[in-house]
Amino acid sequence: MTTKDYDIVVIGAGILGLSCAFHLKKNNPGKSILVVDRLGEVGQANTARSNALFRNTFTSWDNQVLSDTSINFYLDVERKSVDLGIRKTGYLWVMNEKQLSLNERHVQKMIDNGIEVGKYDRADLGRTIPSLRTRFEASDEEANIMKLPDVAGAVFGAKCGRLDPDKLSKFYANQFLGLGGKISLNVNATSLLLEPNEPLGIEGEPFVWQESRVAGVRLEGAVQSDLWAGMVVIAAGIWNNEILEPAGIDGHVKAKKRQLFVVSARGNQSLSNLIHNDNFNDLKTLPFVILPKSGCYLKAVEENNEFWVACEDDLNRPFINNPEPNLENYKAEPSYYEHNVYPILKAYFNEFENSRPSQMWAGMYSYNTLDSIPFVFAENGLIVAGGGSGSGIMKADAMGRIVDEMYRDGEKGEAGLYGNVHYPIEKIGFKSRAVQREEWVI
Amino acid sequence: MTTKDYDIVVIGAGILGLSCAFHLKKNNPGKSILVVDRLGEVGQANTARSNALFRNTFTSWDNQVLSDTSINFYLDVERKSVDLGIRKTGYLWVMNEKQLSLNERHVQKMIDNGIEVGKYDRADLGRTIPSLRTRFEASDEEANIMKLPDVAGAVFGAKCGRLDPDKLSKFYANQFLGLGGKISLNVNATSLLLEPNEPLGIEGEPFVWQESRVAGVRLEGAVQSDLWAGMVVIAAGIWNNEILEPAGIDGHVKAKKRQLFVVSARGNQSLSNLIHNDNFNDLKTLPFVILPKSGCYLKAVEENNEFWVACEDDLNRPFINNPEPNLENYKAEPSYYEHNVYPILKAYFNEFENSRPSQMWAGMYSYNTLDSIPFVFAENGLIVAGGGSGSGIMKADAMGRIVDEMYRDGEKGEAGLYGNVHYPIEKIGFKSRAVQREEWVI
Repeated sequence: MTTKDYDIVVIGAGILGLSCAFHLKKNNPGKSILVVDRLGEVGQANTARSNALFRNTFTSWDNQVLSDTSINFYLDVERKSVDLGIRKTGYLWVMNEKQLSLNERHVQKMIDNGIEVGKYDRADLGRTIPSLRTRFEASDEEANIMKLPDVAGAVFGAKCGRLDPDKLSKFYANQFLGLGGKISLNVNATSLLLEPNEPLGIEGEPFVWQESRVAGVRLEGAVQSDLWAGMVVIAAGIWNNEILEPAGIDGHVKAKKRQLFVVSARGNQSLSNLIHNDNFNDLKTLPFVILPKSGCYLKAVEENNEFWVACEDDLNRPFINNPEPNLENYKAEPSYYEHNVYPILKAYFNEFENSRPSQMWAGMYSYNTLDSIPFVFAENGLIVAGGGSGSGIMKADAMGRIVDEMYRDGEKGEAGLYGNVHYPIEKIGFKSRAVQREEWVI
Repeated sequence: MTTKDYDIVVIGAGILGLSCAFHLKKNNPGKSILVVDRLGEVGQANTARSNALFRNTFTSWDNQVLSDTSINFYLDVERKSVDLGIRKTGYLWVMNEKQLSLNERHVQKMIDNGIEVGKYDRADLGRTIPSLRTRFEASDEEANIMKLPDVAGAVFGAKCGRLDPDKLSKFYANQFLGLGGKISLNVNATSLLLEPNEPLGIEGEPFVWQESRVAGVRLEGAVQSDLWAGMVVIAAGIWNNEILEPAGIDGHVKAKKRQLFVVSARGNQSLSNLIHNDNFNDLKTLPFVILPKSGCYLKAVEENNEFWVACEDDLNRPFINNPEPNLENYKAEPSYYEHNVYPILKAYFNEFENSRPSQMWAGMYSYNTLDSIPFVFAENGLIVAGGGSGSGIMKADAMGRIVDEMYRDGEKGEAGLYGNVHYPIEKIGFKSRAVQREEWVI
């Protein structure tokens, strides 16, 4: 048997990999754990490119629990010690008549489960966000062409907002390092090393009749090297497939480009005014607002006097296999703002008239297209976690605890999520998957 | 709106596409239907490369129904009119002690569901297949190294066997053509054409705020052309992803190479003797035998005096994205026979001593790694069917009927499978998937 270099190696120093590493090291202090990442700093790939929002307003109980406990942990960390840049602005889902009625049962279930949500009717919205257009005239040609629905009301989630993904990454990394963990940067895990459980020393092993397992990873950095480990944890987001597929293991994720556009309010008093709002949160800012058309949303970033805006981008946006970093996939398209995001924004918020993005970028979502719930599964010396985009950051703490539980007790136990919440981990795998499909996906 | 060229276009003239086309045309005689395929004849890609086995012995009720009704249809076709090359040899799953006990409940459920299965103990096997080695001596070094289990018994499935995939393809194609359907060969469907439901005639359509759908396919043949259709049915096996992913739709399949090796019994009397067996079927041949190690199996082909043999090949066998046809993926590896298949075969059946394959080839499995049950789903002007390998042929008839039902009534109805068996089709999609994970996968 090859000598182990580490008890556990974690592939990926994004928010998920770092949370896994921290919880593993915390609960298995005697184990040597290494995190590797191909970039030069932690949390720099899609973690850094994300909107870094959080919410506990999901239709699926699983997502509610994964996010709510993670948010509680982040809030507790910030209260006790480390600034994570949390802004509890709230989420305001503005809906048309049909959406409101379709979502009634989901909202009631959230209330029953103790999620802090409030309902707004059109009059409430007129009072709290006076500039939101809630009705379009029959003569409004553009609204007709775009089939923009009138606003009937909204659902407000209170324990929702945004945080600083860089601060959260560094928090987990520092905690992990403080416990004696190691992080190796600028190192690319290119493939998995398979080893028979009982090697025979014959050329060509492992054969099909041998029991075998993943026993390490091949790394490309300054030099190529093979790293042997008792357990390999894959938490590399959209690159999970790239590592797993050559070994014949399905990574169960699909990568798709998502874009963000920054619209500055500098020199635009009406946009600047829209950022400030006394009616929703202690920060006196507009909450994160989702409009009732094409998932178009706006995030007020008051400290920079700007908005981050985007919309859904699903049909006709290709899935990318094994995406290269830093190429076309990471460039935003100005025309996408102009023809898709802008017309919707401007129609509901006239403040955006003539706005152009001052900055834009793209990141890659790591979709679980099956049910939009993340997953963790164990297989042949591996634990694989993923499928959380675009709600990965807000569930990362729970996911790290589930990975740790799976490491210690296999796929059948219960993970202790933050706040003493127990989560049966078998249901988040694929062999006996039993999660509720998520209906509120942005 | 663009003028439709056909009411329905089916991508893929493998067994699944042809079954879809036939059932669609039969039940919608007024609709114009075109099947396109990149090869020059029907059923020539992975359909032709397959083992073309059939069985109704599955652990999942869904697979039982899909296969049993399809087999009944094929048997009926052959009885009434067309030779499909059906050989009802039976399947013999040879098991070790642990497998027998783990599978007891599955076998009982099959019996309860009316599947014709019989149990064999070691003595029965000794009587019916005297040359099968059921025990390895403690001193048998090779058996020890390979951890070959002793045989404890077997499960025999009677309504199982093989058929001629070429004859079945041609049967469906001829029926479809006879009803007035069209097949266009040597034509490659390279991408989907999206169209807004209400086109505006603006450059860059469809925009995100427009309702849009798949309205056709781009074809590359002698010339490139765009074909517009009321419904596009994708039944292209491992190429489903290649067509769907650029449009941002998950094909839900993974492609993996599988190999077959032909061992001739010519000039080898003991092997030739093994083919003939009076104890299992009217054909007086050895049934299809699965050995209790690594899914190693042997299929006697009495008319050619040969065996087709193979074994499972999962961990460390890469998934291939968008595989090119006719390249490395379709070559079998002699060393795979030598080091993996042969040692197992020879250990249980001494007749294979010194055997070498006279022919070999590979095909690509189109896996649904989630639950090993095929799927059919509808989305934006599309119906997608797949995920059936390596049991696609034996379920193709039922799948075609499900696709037809989905075309006529959407995702919520019941398909009428052969023999007046009703199957609720919603459960075989992904939005409300409710199938039992299959445990008996070869």
